[in-house]
Amino acid sequence: MAMLKFPTDRLYLDDLHVGQRFVSEPHVLDAEQIKAFAAEFDPQPFHLSDEAAQQSLFKGLAASGWHTAALTMRMLVESMPLADGLVGAELELAWPKPTRPGMTLQVFSEIVDIKPSKSKPDMAMVTARNETRDQDGEVLQIFSVKMPVFKRVRLT
Amino acid sequence: MAMLKFPTDRLYLDDLHVGQRFVSEPHVLDAEQIKAFAAEFDPQPFHLSDEAAQQSLFKGLAASGWHTAALTMRMLVESMPLADGLVGAELELAWPKPTRPGMTLQVFSEIVDIKPSKSKPDMAMVTARNETRDQDGEVLQIFSVKMPVFKRVRLT
Repeated sequence: MAMLKFPTDRLYLDDLHVGQRFVSEPHVLDAEQIKAFAAEFDPQPFHLSDEAAQQSLFKGLAASGWHTAALTMRMLVESMPLADGLVGAELELAWPKPTRPGMTLQVFSEIVDIKPSKSKPDMAMVTARNETRDQDGEVLQIFSVKMPVFKRVRLT
Repeated sequence: MAMLKFPTDRLYLDDLHVGQRFVSEPHVLDAEQIKAFAAEFDPQPFHLSDEAAQQSLFKGLAASGWHTAALTMRMLVESMPLADGLVGAELELAWPKPTRPGMTLQVFSEIVDIKPSKSKPDMAMVTARNETRDQDGEVLQIFSVKMPVFKRVRLT
């Protein structure tokens, strides 16, 4: 795994606008990582064994969707450096294609909505749409999340 | 971590009905597990350090939501033993309360919808609503998922 790079530019609500985009560093996924995650959190045959996976819906080893989601989070923490952190209130997830060993994952994010809070003038709910794509640009995961984001100068 | 118990009753579409419930075994979460998951997948200060977490929105160490989600999946694999596997097509997730060290997590599931496929007579999209609760019954995560589920006798 690559060293964590701590972002130097921490973003506040003042720094965000609808249409703003972020792109993560790539992450190379191999069968070992897929099986290790599955053994701990999603021990189903098609995430653990190449042979069993051939007989499944997936027709070959596939990563747990939660592994794709967790790796996406890891990449997002670096690519979208919100000053007060990335804290999801609610979200939607879909996995249009399986994540396979040998793929290089990368997260492409866009701010799609900013809804100022009525009760807290220094806060807004920011909606980000994050696509996790493979090296050919195929979309493996679509993840939309609403996050509270604060202004640089806090009123409370 | 508890030994994985392989379920002896594998469930097919024929075995499911709306209103059917499943309850998982409990999982005891500690600060070490929270920090280890966060270091790998969600390295934000409020998931890594008790001190930093005190200064954050969370006011104390909290598990990554993805950790709660991954542990929920682990418990579901045992408590809802679908014969062809638990494969999420799309889902919604919300974390109404933070998951904290020392909590005992348990998943309470209910089948809320079964929509037979128009094109595949041996398949339906099954919607399960899964609540992950702490030892006091407080809801930490609500997770609704649509999964393809097949009949015992496959037509294809």
